[in-house]
Amino acid sequence: MNEITMRLQADHLILEALKEDISSEDVTTNSVIKEAVIGEVSLICKQDGIVAGMEVFRRVFELLDDHVEVTCYCKDGDPVTNGEQMGLVRGDIRALLSGERVALNFLQRMSGIATYTHCVVALLKGSKTKLLDTRKTTPNMRIFEKYAVRVGGGYNHRYNLSDGVLLKDNHIGAAGSVKRAIELAKEYAPFVRKIEVETENLEMVREAVEAGADIIMLDNMSLEEMRQAILLIDGRAETECSGNVTKENIEHLTSLGVDYISSGALTHSAPILDISLKNLHTI
Amino acid sequence: MNEITMRLQADHLILEALKEDISSEDVTTNSVIKEAVIGEVSLICKQDGIVAGMEVFRRVFELLDDHVEVTCYCKDGDPVTNGEQMGLVRGDIRALLSGERVALNFLQRMSGIATYTHCVVALLKGSKTKLLDTRKTTPNMRIFEKYAVRVGGGYNHRYNLSDGVLLKDNHIGAAGSVKRAIELAKEYAPFVRKIEVETENLEMVREAVEAGADIIMLDNMSLEEMRQAILLIDGRAETECSGNVTKENIEHLTSLGVDYISSGALTHSAPILDISLKNLHTI
Amino acid sequence: MNEITMRLQADHLILEALKEDISSEDVTTNSVIKEAVIGEVSLICKQDGIVAGMEVFRRVFELLDDHVEVTCYCKDGDPVTNGEQMGLVRGDIRALLSGERVALNFLQRMSGIATYTHCVVALLKGSKTKLLDTRKTTPNMRIFEKYAVRVGGGYNHRYNLSDGVLLKDNHIGAAGSVKRAIELAKEYAPFVRKIEVETENLEMVREAVEAGADIIMLDNMSLEEMRQAILLIDGRAETECSGNVTKENIEHLTSLGVDYISSGALTHSAPILDISLKNLHTI
Amino acid sequence: MNEITMRLQADHLILEALKEDISSEDVTTNSVIKEAVIGEVSLICKQDGIVAGMEVFRRVFELLDDHVEVTCYCKDGDPVTNGEQMGLVRGDIRALLSGERVALNFLQRMSGIATYTHCVVALLKGSKTKLLDTRKTTPNMRIFEKYAVRVGGGYNHRYNLSDGVLLKDNHIGAAGSVKRAIELAKEYAPFVRKIEVETENLEMVREAVEAGADIIMLDNMSLEEMRQAILLIDGRAETECSGNVTKENIEHLTSLGVDYISSGALTHSAPILDISLKNLHTI
Amino acid sequence: MNEITMRLQADHLILEALKEDISSEDVTTNSVIKEAVIGEVSLICKQDGIVAGMEVFRRVFELLDDHVEVTCYCKDGDPVTNGEQMGLVRGDIRALLSGERVALNFLQRMSGIATYTHCVVALLKGSKTKLLDTRKTTPNMRIFEKYAVRVGGGYNHRYNLSDGVLLKDNHIGAAGSVKRAIELAKEYAPFVRKIEVETENLEMVREAVEAGADIIMLDNMSLEEMRQAILLIDGRAETECSGNVTKENIEHLTSLGVDYISSGALTHSAPILDISLKNLHTI
Amino acid sequence: MNEITMRLQADHLILEALKEDISSEDVTTNSVIKEAVIGEVSLICKQDGIVAGMEVFRRVFELLDDHVEVTCYCKDGDPVTNGEQMGLVRGDIRALLSGERVALNFLQRMSGIATYTHCVVALLKGSKTKLLDTRKTTPNMRIFEKYAVRVGGGYNHRYNLSDGVLLKDNHIGAAGSVKRAIELAKEYAPFVRKIEVETENLEMVREAVEAGADIIMLDNMSLEEMRQAILLIDGRAETECSGNVTKENIEHLTSLGVDYISSGALTHSAPILDISLKNLHTI
Repeated sequence: MNEITMRLQADHLILEALKEDISSEDVTTNSVIKEAVIGEVSLICKQDGIVAGMEVFRRVFELLDDHVEVTCYCKDGDPVTNGEQMGLVRGDIRALLSGERVALNFLQRMSGIATYTHCVVALLKGSKTKLLDTRKTTPNMRIFEKYAVRVGGGYNHRYNLSDGVLLKDNHIGAAGSVKRAIELAKEYAPFVRKIEVETENLEMVREAVEAGADIIMLDNMSLEEMRQAILLIDGRAETECSGNVTKENIEHLTSLGVDYISSGALTHSAPILDISLKNLHTI
Repeated sequence: MNEITMRLQADHLILEALKEDISSEDVTTNSVIKEAVIGEVSLICKQDGIVAGMEVFRRVFELLDDHVEVTCYCKDGDPVTNGEQMGLVRGDIRALLSGERVALNFLQRMSGIATYTHCVVALLKGSKTKLLDTRKTTPNMRIFEKYAVRVGGGYNHRYNLSDGVLLKDNHIGAAGSVKRAIELAKEYAPFVRKIEVETENLEMVREAVEAGADIIMLDNMSLEEMRQAILLIDGRAETECSGNVTKENIEHLTSLGVDYISSGALTHSAPILDISLKNLHTI
Repeated sequence: MNEITMRLQADHLILEALKEDISSEDVTTNSVIKEAVIGEVSLICKQDGIVAGMEVFRRVFELLDDHVEVTCYCKDGDPVTNGEQMGLVRGDIRALLSGERVALNFLQRMSGIATYTHCVVALLKGSKTKLLDTRKTTPNMRIFEKYAVRVGGGYNHRYNLSDGVLLKDNHIGAAGSVKRAIELAKEYAPFVRKIEVETENLEMVREAVEAGADIIMLDNMSLEEMRQAILLIDGRAETECSGNVTKENIEHLTSLGVDYISSGALTHSAPILDISLKNLHTI
Repeated sequence: MNEITMRLQADHLILEALKEDISSEDVTTNSVIKEAVIGEVSLICKQDGIVAGMEVFRRVFELLDDHVEVTCYCKDGDPVTNGEQMGLVRGDIRALLSGERVALNFLQRMSGIATYTHCVVALLKGSKTKLLDTRKTTPNMRIFEKYAVRVGGGYNHRYNLSDGVLLKDNHIGAAGSVKRAIELAKEYAPFVRKIEVETENLEMVREAVEAGADIIMLDNMSLEEMRQAILLIDGRAETECSGNVTKENIEHLTSLGVDYISSGALTHSAPILDISLKNLHTI
Repeated sequence: MNEITMRLQADHLILEALKEDISSEDVTTNSVIKEAVIGEVSLICKQDGIVAGMEVFRRVFELLDDHVEVTCYCKDGDPVTNGEQMGLVRGDIRALLSGERVALNFLQRMSGIATYTHCVVALLKGSKTKLLDTRKTTPNMRIFEKYAVRVGGGYNHRYNLSDGVLLKDNHIGAAGSVKRAIELAKEYAPFVRKIEVETENLEMVREAVEAGADIIMLDNMSLEEMRQAILLIDGRAETECSGNVTKENIEHLTSLGVDYISSGALTHSAPILDISLKNLHTI
Repeated sequence: MNEITMRLQADHLILEALKEDISSEDVTTNSVIKEAVIGEVSLICKQDGIVAGMEVFRRVFELLDDHVEVTCYCKDGDPVTNGEQMGLVRGDIRALLSGERVALNFLQRMSGIATYTHCVVALLKGSKTKLLDTRKTTPNMRIFEKYAVRVGGGYNHRYNLSDGVLLKDNHIGAAGSVKRAIELAKEYAPFVRKIEVETENLEMVREAVEAGADIIMLDNMSLEEMRQAILLIDGRAETECSGNVTKENIEHLTSLGVDYISSGALTHSAPILDISLKNLHTI
């Protein structure tokens, strides 16, 4: 994650997470360790996967204590394997103990998303189709989760409601027609926005492409309908297929030549990657 | 979720999540809907499970627009089934469209955790053993996730590092012995804290129970070791078994008569429960 | 301004502005008025212009005191004339006195921008060219200033660095070529982003249009160069001319058929529209 | 600007302004520049004027990236001329590109105010009359704008409603009389506050001076009335003339011997001073 | 406390205090009371004194729960006696129990300060000397504590370092002389500020009064020196005696005719006034 | 105070306290000292007592200016005597002057609490009884005040409503019986919580101890009742006597063998310890 994004958008959330876990003090650690003692602890992977969030992991400790040093033996996007030492954290043992859980909570979740995304991307290999995330992210975790999708080989759809136009059935209904909705969006939205339209049948697809939609989402269509839609669009707009990507249907989807497939599961249901801090000792 | 907790601890996080999704405005909606139009939309369950987070779902809309009314047809803890209408949201269509994603992101995750917890609790049925969560929660989501565990029938372990004492190997090492660590904790920690000790063998168990530990965690022990540990403790402290609860080993664990089993997966790896807003229409 | 944007993005800034002006209390008012006294005061325009910010004006008082009522006799976008009564504010005189300055500071600046924008837009009348703002806004006032531009008849360029891609010479230099810069942007940026390239000569224009730029900014070109650039682009990308729009050169610019002209002065140098609260009296 | 004020009151606003411009990341820069590259860029003045805000300019970059170094070739209050190099910014090119707009938005506005103030102050030269600002500042920019006025040679009126007493007609009306209003203010306001009274005629002036007002504002009076008022006051209170200072009337005003003239335009309508960052290159 | 000050400056602090006391939830109350139950509880005074903070007390409950109603049987400044019922709080018992401690912590401290101030003011009765507070307030409690001083019959010195000028020996040393320090302050400080100078001997007093100081603080002088100082000043400046006011020396101080006596103890060492909530019952 | 607690929980409050005292700038200091001047000032004790808050004192200056160095000649818990030099602060004189009051406000209050606690603890010497604080702390000062109690030799009761269970009469009433209340609390509260019950007579004591209460508070009982209660409890629960500890009754209380005595006065009514900064000079 870019240093500037870290400062402006991530630091605050990391700090809040630390305060969530230490609302007054780490009672256990403060009970038994009264003075600074320098030690180190290893970051060990306990499952194969793709790592994401090493800089966030580091930042958790830095925000707790300036003097903690995190040495990374891998970087975001690297494959890691069960038993591999991913890094080393050195500093006041009290900071190592107090920051451990929050640092791992970030790293495990981000790596879990990168790992899961990587698996799905593998299914698309050989096709021109790219994998997109959605806005189905954990509240207040979007900056971390969308980054992890990219680390895993996926691409980002719009970041939020403010930076992308996606006309859904209700917007179209309110506007009166696909054409009118696109006109209104072009008139109102910042001119750097692409206009995406969600379509449910070929008639809507035709209307959208003719009204100048930049991206057309094919929603809940059969494979045959999608094939016809893509023929009809004929490169005049990008195409997105939204829906459940499974090992079973993936081949059919990629063979259609759709530009993008989006999947909410990348962020809402990826299990974590198991990583832990082991072998803490004084030095 | 209690109204007071909602105000003091949840409102801020809900508002941040809304700002995350609407960093300037909902461009799409504002393009096509210029004035307030009253409508309603149904909350539909698309998967069987246990619902958690209805009040959070409601609060998302209230924080966007005072005039939105959310009618709930189920309450936290209720089982819901695929296709069931869980509620109805009525108000300015612009608020319904702008708040939809954030409201569902909370509700789906909380219900996912409650559902997953409920399944694991079912495995413990008939035994005296209770299911505990851990601090392996999503950063800045703990208040929601620990609540969802309770809704699903689980129990909460300590909320954070400030309100529970858990002496791990490194604390014990720093103190010099189990006995000394417990003494230090009793001396330092607020006197309302119970003292929990993580033990790895029978010798540590013996030392802990004799030094007056309130709770003894049996970590990475074999079934046979755990059995002996529980015999040795003999009711003088509560017992917690931390580790991977699976269909396969659960029977063995419960038969031991351990008081608590804790599981990080409840919060870090539960998939969401699929829920959506359908059939938006003006009224 | 949309109600939801007001709540999520404007309220906080309005509240900060009120705290800036009342860091402990309104000493003068509290000295002489010890109890609530209901009164009203008229909002009077003292200069011809276009009004923008009536809802923000109202919100300042609402955030100070729930019981203040603001009646608007005009709405954003309306022309107002010197002497015209724009609205009426009724409530506890202490709130009227304490909120007056902040409410006017917002309204005057926003109306000043709308008025200035409106004047420039008038110069473009009859052409297809649209007027754009820039990111040259007052710090922490962007949400208000970009809105005011739209009220005045202008259009918004990207909101910030996160929601639009604009490849400038330094980006192109870092990438190695226009073509490579566009490729990198298409690979990295959320796929809903248009790609804009700043060009300084016809060669860059050609490269950009061939590499699939969505928007081409013609920077510091002569009229003749711009004409050729637009011919070369031939509708394959939108065109933006960035620079000083004056009464003198405007005719030349619009005759070129450029799609957009952008102007920083709309937000960084528009004088305020003079508006005041007059005739406060008890009722 | 004083370092302590910067930390306590300005840093937060600078950070908010950066977040306003980078709500997730600088997409363009991150697309093409993946690693830190050290470069430098020159700060060039494009218009004659008085500089204000060099430390704020520096702080924007520091808050983005600790390693950016800003070398200033001029300091606040210095006259600068078109084409002059005002400073040099050196560091990771990504920070230079991402911070440029916000840093300039502050510097240009503050320098614009200092320049405008300087021009008005020049008109007062030779007289004892001093130039004051008002509370007609841009919301959330007061700390920067009042400072810029001082840099330009003006003086600050009260900072906000909490730190100065100014009894206006409505306060006087509520109190019953000028005399009573002054008594109430002396009784209530912290005893270090001076008491200023806004007067509209000689009768009010007499009453105010006799009741012990520290400062008397002469509002909307004719030159002749002002002359008599100043005679009547005879040094027993300071005098402030509030109103439109123009080249035409300035001579009359200064000849009256009024102590202060206040002008809202210094902060609400000063155009920016044109300054830019040029010639970015790697080093 | 004024409603506007409450909203802008007190609400945030009250909310923080509530979060300090309820960092996740009121575990005890939520354990036993699962649903709203309406009840009421009496606010009972357990010591004679002067009440201050009734509106703050009310606000604590309002911020917890909109539906709680606080009926006040006394108002700020009223004398209350042991056993007197000061008010009644009615609403959901859970809110009454959860808000009790924070509401009382504010009310008891504020009333303690008002009571203590009232006692000291009584000692000054019959003289022209007024009692002032200082900046020796509890961190983050100034808005409440300075208000309580006023309720008790005292007067406020400057609110903070930003809204009053007080030249101490170090400032005078840095400036070179009392005269120069006053000149510099008059040149720099907003023109509505009075200039106060701390003096230690008659020479400094003479210099200060001649240089136009508005207020002269007599610091650590003997009674005889103070008498001479006041003669020397002869009404040309206000006088403040800073120091330990005791029953013993008070008569001497007032007989001097000093304008103000300031006392840090009013805010830093006043004991609380004992007040409690009694007889909670459902209704 | 632990470094991590300082960062996560104290820094924010210290910064707010600084902003409270410097809402725009330190006008006096900025008037006379335009450039950095290095100086030093001594921290002098003016009263015998126990020091608490030296790290907080240091932190105030660090948060104002990175370059200020605070040398401590004593540490928290040390006895200090009138006239003793406790430390030395060296750095830019402007930071020394601007931070003085806030730094002392923290240090004096914390040391006052430690000193007062120390005195009460001395009365308990020779007995097994320990001294506890309560939640009767100053709003937004709990983290500092509870720490100071510990420094003075006292022990902390629960930190807040979220991390301790204390069943009072109203909770018991709502539950129906002491037994039922304890059951509900054991079922609901995180399992690491001890359960404390407030009892008013022997019957309640008996019920509580039999239902498994961990701690029993003896409230408003006569000495004789307390003696019987303790006999009845017979070590099955810890005992707390809540109430007014005075020199007169202390002997009786300790002879009872009660485990804890709690006192609200430690935090709500301890007078400050008089400490000041003296002899500022340039170096």
